[in-house]
Amino acid sequence: MSEFDAVAARVSDRVTPDEAEREALRSAVDALTGRIRDAVADLPVDGRIVQVGSTARGTWLADDRDIDLFVCFPPDTDRADLETYGLSVGRTALPDAREEYAEHPYVTGEFHGFDVDLVPCYDVEDATAIQSAVDRTPFHDAYLRERLTPELATDVRLFKAFLMGIGAYGSDLKTRGFSGYLSELLVLEYGGFEALLRGAADWRPPVRFDPENHGTESFDDPLVVIDPTDPTRNVAAVCAPENVARLQHYARNLLDDPSDEPFVSADPDPIDADAVRAHLDRRGTTPVAVVFETPDIVDDQLYPQLRKSLNGIASELDRRGFKPVRSTTAAGDRAVLFVELAVDELPTVRRHRGPPVHVREHATGFYDAYADGDAYGPFLDDGRYVVERSREFSTPGELLGGDAIFQVALGTHVERALEDGYELLVGEAAASLADEFGVAFARYFDPTP
Amino acid sequence: MSEFDAVAARVSDRVTPDEAEREALRSAVDALTGRIRDAVADLPVDGRIVQVGSTARGTWLADDRDIDLFVCFPPDTDRADLETYGLSVGRTALPDAREEYAEHPYVTGEFHGFDVDLVPCYDVEDATAIQSAVDRTPFHDAYLRERLTPELATDVRLFKAFLMGIGAYGSDLKTRGFSGYLSELLVLEYGGFEALLRGAADWRPPVRFDPENHGTESFDDPLVVIDPTDPTRNVAAVCAPENVARLQHYARNLLDDPSDEPFVSADPDPIDADAVRAHLDRRGTTPVAVVFETPDIVDDQLYPQLRKSLNGIASELDRRGFKPVRSTTAAGDRAVLFVELAVDELPTVRRHRGPPVHVREHATGFYDAYADGDAYGPFLDDGRYVVERSREFSTPGELLGGDAIFQVALGTHVERALEDGYELLVGEAAASLADEFGVAFARYFDPTP
Repeated sequence: MSEFDAVAARVSDRVTPDEAEREALRSAVDALTGRIRDAVADLPVDGRIVQVGSTARGTWLADDRDIDLFVCFPPDTDRADLETYGLSVGRTALPDAREEYAEHPYVTGEFHGFDVDLVPCYDVEDATAIQSAVDRTPFHDAYLRERLTPELATDVRLFKAFLMGIGAYGSDLKTRGFSGYLSELLVLEYGGFEALLRGAADWRPPVRFDPENHGTESFDDPLVVIDPTDPTRNVAAVCAPENVARLQHYARNLLDDPSDEPFVSADPDPIDADAVRAHLDRRGTTPVAVVFETPDIVDDQLYPQLRKSLNGIASELDRRGFKPVRSTTAAGDRAVLFVELAVDELPTVRRHRGPPVHVREHATGFYDAYADGDAYGPFLDDGRYVVERSREFSTPGELLGGDAIFQVALGTHVERALEDGYELLVGEAAASLADEFGVAFARYFDPTP
Repeated sequence: MSEFDAVAARVSDRVTPDEAEREALRSAVDALTGRIRDAVADLPVDGRIVQVGSTARGTWLADDRDIDLFVCFPPDTDRADLETYGLSVGRTALPDAREEYAEHPYVTGEFHGFDVDLVPCYDVEDATAIQSAVDRTPFHDAYLRERLTPELATDVRLFKAFLMGIGAYGSDLKTRGFSGYLSELLVLEYGGFEALLRGAADWRPPVRFDPENHGTESFDDPLVVIDPTDPTRNVAAVCAPENVARLQHYARNLLDDPSDEPFVSADPDPIDADAVRAHLDRRGTTPVAVVFETPDIVDDQLYPQLRKSLNGIASELDRRGFKPVRSTTAAGDRAVLFVELAVDELPTVRRHRGPPVHVREHATGFYDAYADGDAYGPFLDDGRYVVERSREFSTPGELLGGDAIFQVALGTHVERALEDGYELLVGEAAASLADEFGVAFARYFDPTP
């Protein structure tokens, strides 16, 4: 047995649900389905019950106890009715039901130790006729069920465990990685985990797969997998270039030097304020940190806003001459926008180039405006008037501590949170944040692919 | 009389040579011509003696006592013979003759209190047939003599005095301004000093004059005056954009608010080290100064080399992240390359972007080279490997104090002078240079057009 196969066998053993777990799942699904059928019977319309997701397809990882049940209502059902039916069925079938909202409301709860999502959808004829994003799921499920052999299901589990280990699993907007459906399509495409890794190691993005040869729709993403059930959709649309590169990097590593390690996801140990200070000393940089109450929104809203805000602040610091080296954001009870700068202080004067002298009216206006002022100049440089006048912000603290921070492009909820107040830490003072963000700092100061 | 005319009359009075000066000049030229004629008579070839330049055309400024005499030899004279003849005539005619070198040797000396240049040239048929740059001069002279009325000669003197006052007179490579010939052509073109100023105030470079309608030759310079005696030559080729702009600026000023002041050139008072320090404090900048023995070469070689060296050093400081604000150079017994910086210290790490991960061989090589080293990373950014490795120079002193200074584009003689040793002053220490370069600092810290 090759070293690679030995690793795969060990990991597979660990992540394949055992017979007890399978049996527990089956009985939970049966019981739930019965309860849902009874609840649907009380409704004025028919509803087809479909189990979907990895537990339906046998591709779930051991101890990942999610049950997804969809109730498919006739396509001519009024949307408000569909929502009402969905919630009513959910409340009846799941005693501790909580309502959640995606494109429309659904119900989530616990049943026999499993996390259950109970989702109403439209029973459309094919995936291109969907009325709501969730209507697509039963088609995905049917497509995969038909094609995934038990051997392929094993390889799907290996690939998912690998993506989790390297931090690239999940199409949520915090991770921007590979969804379950995408992972299964890729294993199917290559016919197995190892073949997929060998393929990915040599990808030269943009990489395009079109399992059902749908044809011509084109996408701008580094990885394109045309949805077999919907020619207009790239299943990998959310996958960031960085996660494609991450898969490539770790695929090469695993093939070169097989090991169980990349299949195990683990946060690094947090580092403390002293360690942060030591890094800053060694790097000779100046950090600035904007810290505020984390807005009370779901992660799929929060992380895009944090990224947008971080980018807004870093761009403004760059535009103002403070030369960001690197930056990061993290969120717990409080959230931080952290930018490490190369420049901590700039002159009090700033060069301001005026018009060419030959543009008479404009040039004379410029000259007269500055001739008797405090600025240095006007003088000539290459045929233009130039002055050196006061710089607006000589330190990053002046820039981020005043109204200017609200002029940059921030996420809506982040902007509101900053309006309620924020802490600004510049230089070594920022090291104290290690108490709150020690793991994020560990990742930042010991970065890996 | 308009205020402008009153100023012009006063200045004209001051700069027009009086009858005594004219008479002294005439008699000196006559005596010299006789001596030259005798010396030429001893040569085996004929030589035509021509007086050229502003004293020949009556456009010289009072007390500007230059006599230029050319001896024109037959065009088939061997160049070595021409040089021998020129020197021999010069030595005979001018007792205290010194040899100078332009394109070929000539003789310079004093005679009756006048500075005399005695130049051998070829007596060619027209200016396009010249064998040496100086052969052109007699044609320039003839062209202007034919056209300059006494009224125009007065206006030429006004224009020259004005250009001197604003620091834009002279086609030497320190000034890069307006030559005497160019000044006279411009006055001729506009028909007078005031008309020229009104015209220049509205110039929109590139400005082109072609007094003899020679036609199509095109030039890249902001000001183009096609030589009436040579269609291939732009008389204003050496004139820097800055000096064109300077003329425009002061022309507008003089027309708006006539005054004798711009006709008087005066160095500013030197400033002292305390004043320099006060400016640096107010500006919040960090100066660096490289000081060395001024190379023993003529100004037309020295200043281009100083500019090239200053530009080389400032560009390298810029490339290395120290953000030059402004710079200058000056020369006395020692020369200085002075660059004022916005950034005096940079981090010890520097971001280094590697290849895209998908370029497998190159990417793997990059990763392996850095994976076990001291650098931060490799980590991923937008699909590429990135590391943060040691920066070569964290301070401008490290950059300019070591071998790196010899890697930048320096003038040849400046490079040699630096090899013999130089002083490097960073920050406030540079203020002490005010003792040597007080006038240059006065111009630098109180810049005017």
